Amino acid sequence: MTEAEVFTAVETLARNARTASYRLSQLSTHAKNAILEAMAAELRARTPEIVAANALDLKAGEEKGLSKPMLERLKLDEKKVEAIARGIDQVVALPDPVGQVMDEWARPNGMRLQQVRVPIGTIGIIYESRPNVTSDAAVLCFKTGNATILRGGSEAIHSNRAIAEALQAGGEKVGLPAHAIQLIPFTDRSSVSALCQMDKWLDLIIPRGGKGLIETVVSQARMPVIKHYDGICHLFVDVAADLDMAVALTVDSKTQKTGVCNALETLLVHSSVAESHLPTIAAALKEKGVELRGCERTRQIVEAVPATEEDWGTEYLDLILSVKIVDSLEEAIEHINTYGSHHTECIVTKDDATANAFLAGCDSACVFHNVSTRLADGEEFGFGAEIGISTDKLHARGPMGLRELTSYQYRVRGEGQTKG
Amino acid sequence: MTEAEVFTAVETLARNARTASYRLSQLSTHAKNAILEAMAAELRARTPEIVAANALDLKAGEEKGLSKPMLERLKLDEKKVEAIARGIDQVVALPDPVGQVMDEWARPNGMRLQQVRVPIGTIGIIYESRPNVTSDAAVLCFKTGNATILRGGSEAIHSNRAIAEALQAGGEKVGLPAHAIQLIPFTDRSSVSALCQMDKWLDLIIPRGGKGLIETVVSQARMPVIKHYDGICHLFVDVAADLDMAVALTVDSKTQKTGVCNALETLLVHSSVAESHLPTIAAALKEKGVELRGCERTRQIVEAVPATEEDWGTEYLDLILSVKIVDSLEEAIEHINTYGSHHTECIVTKDDATANAFLAGCDSACVFHNVSTRLADGEEFGFGAEIGISTDKLHARGPMGLRELTSYQYRVRGEGQTKG
Repeated sequence: MTEAEVFTAVETLARNARTASYRLSQLSTHAKNAILEAMAAELRARTPEIVAANALDLKAGEEKGLSKPMLERLKLDEKKVEAIARGIDQVVALPDPVGQVMDEWARPNGMRLQQVRVPIGTIGIIYESRPNVTSDAAVLCFKTGNATILRGGSEAIHSNRAIAEALQAGGEKVGLPAHAIQLIPFTDRSSVSALCQMDKWLDLIIPRGGKGLIETVVSQARMPVIKHYDGICHLFVDVAADLDMAVALTVDSKTQKTGVCNALETLLVHSSVAESHLPTIAAALKEKGVELRGCERTRQIVEAVPATEEDWGTEYLDLILSVKIVDSLEEAIEHINTYGSHHTECIVTKDDATANAFLAGCDSACVFHNVSTRLADGEEFGFGAEIGISTDKLHARGPMGLRELTSYQYRVRGEGQTKG
Repeated sequence: MTEAEVFTAVETLARNARTASYRLSQLSTHAKNAILEAMAAELRARTPEIVAANALDLKAGEEKGLSKPMLERLKLDEKKVEAIARGIDQVVALPDPVGQVMDEWARPNGMRLQQVRVPIGTIGIIYESRPNVTSDAAVLCFKTGNATILRGGSEAIHSNRAIAEALQAGGEKVGLPAHAIQLIPFTDRSSVSALCQMDKWLDLIIPRGGKGLIETVVSQARMPVIKHYDGICHLFVDVAADLDMAVALTVDSKTQKTGVCNALETLLVHSSVAESHLPTIAAALKEKGVELRGCERTRQIVEAVPATEEDWGTEYLDLILSVKIVDSLEEAIEHINTYGSHHTECIVTKDDATANAFLAGCDSACVFHNVSTRLADGEEFGFGAEIGISTDKLHARGPMGLRELTSYQYRVRGEGQTKG
């Protein structure tokens, strides 16, 4: 396809999504749940076809020489398809935020105002290799009354098509509006650029994937983008920290899982407790196989590779931790605001006033007092499901649940009130 | 200045704004109000200097051949400076949303979550000829703890500098952090593009001005942009409309002020009441000097210029109104969603069920039942002040007050909760 053909094809999808969104916004919660149940049923019924489509992707991936972890992410078997369907069951059970009255008040002239949650409208999801995102993202957007255009990675195209077709076919049996969930059916790279130009028809793009993909979307998109680049999370062991808790939270934050955005990457230790606390913390980390990269003062107390300036801004996603000794709460906050990625930071302290100053001072989506950074997650926060985490500050910040997939509208009622 | 020099200069401003934002976010409401009062006092004290600076702009504008309305918008006299200062007084009186707990809850593992309003951080304001925006925008952003970078029109550069210097000098006497309010002091056009690249330091850009300016910002900005292009507002006279109210609301919406985004541009009339209601409405509009542009069926009932397809998507900002007869509520809604600008729509009806369907069906920021479109305004809504109106759906939709200049942060407290 030429770029112009891709543009035209994507524009048609986007226009159709806009039309579908007007039907979706009028569906009752009951109707939406019935559709979701039918989607899950169809997905389960089509398990053999989905696994067969996935085999085509795996074969192509092997021939293209994809790495083992990439093939692993790509792979679907019966269990994984069942997990996708169970994800839909869970979304059925979640409360629907659409229609909720967020605020209401009256004015002296008698007009009554309501701020009411409504769907955003149309959402583009651009993602990479995991085919489960096709369903996970589409059903969260659908539950909140939004139409979706899905643009998955080329290496998963057969799997994505099979999953999207199952959702559409299942849903349409019980009233899913046409074009409510659309997958871009071709793999041309320029479809990403084309989507980024569709601000007339698309209200939002959510890119999920590596830095390169997100960078492309951010620089090209004319509409809002919700994203996160990095998770450079910090834990600060304050002068009033309980040693046992500092050890437990550091170990959990760093090692419970390493390849995730809410894992710890930098440990900050108050100089007054560095000699007393750091050796015990370092020993516990060493036992878990963590490599330490320390500042000068850290290396006078525990064994560590010298940290470079680059280390403070690095998301290792691995069993590596940078360690810095600071002389004050203010220095800890300044380090975090300078080198962090505004994702999640924790302070370990018994002093509530210090904790409050830390929470208010860190310019991050999630700020924790005596809680592991690994708990910065929609599921752990009680949102039931998560479309992603935002390190932006507009619209949605931190873990994004269903509520973050809605906009609002002012509904005003009166008896003929005029300005003049 | 070369483009590279402009970029470097703007980057320095943006970095400094980020640093200032961390100090601003920690200021108490009391401290912020004291600073605002000092700003207003200094502005009043410097009235002669501001009027003198404005005279330079007016002289240059006359030499450049600016139109009379443009010179009028540009002009500052003692009364206008006093109005700007009174605007600051009003912002002092408004409640501060920063620190407000929007939501709080606990999880089964004992951790307590709070969603707390915090400043957005750093905001770029790009605007055109009116110098009062320099103060109006800066003080709203300051009241909500945000640092601002102001980029005004070149034709108002002396006035803008004089106003910004007054705000800074007044504020700094009582603790305004350095770089909290910065005006780009030069008029190079490339400073707009440079600002659009500062997503590392700037959290948001609000462009205020013509379509060309907004288009430039939307296509170049890497950070969120809040804007509105057009106000193509509709009023629908339903089959159950009270004729007197239909006349009053149409006349007020169209003629109370024409050059504003919440003025009426298209009248939709249900075919069942077109013959009975349209002549009276048309007569009232004619009396106010309104030119009608009607569909075929309209022109069979009242005198009107034939409307073209283009008319339905035109914001006249003048004493012109397009008129269309529709056969149903659904057709009215579809017309609005197709041709409108998602700003403000009104239905006139005595039937609450019809009204509710209209409000829920229109994909617009403000949807009114028996209320003039001219009341779609932050002041009228009770927000006290308005930084602008958004026809976007992300973050802020419709009139934007102080609350819309904030973000939020999740503050989580526990006793050592871990994931593992």
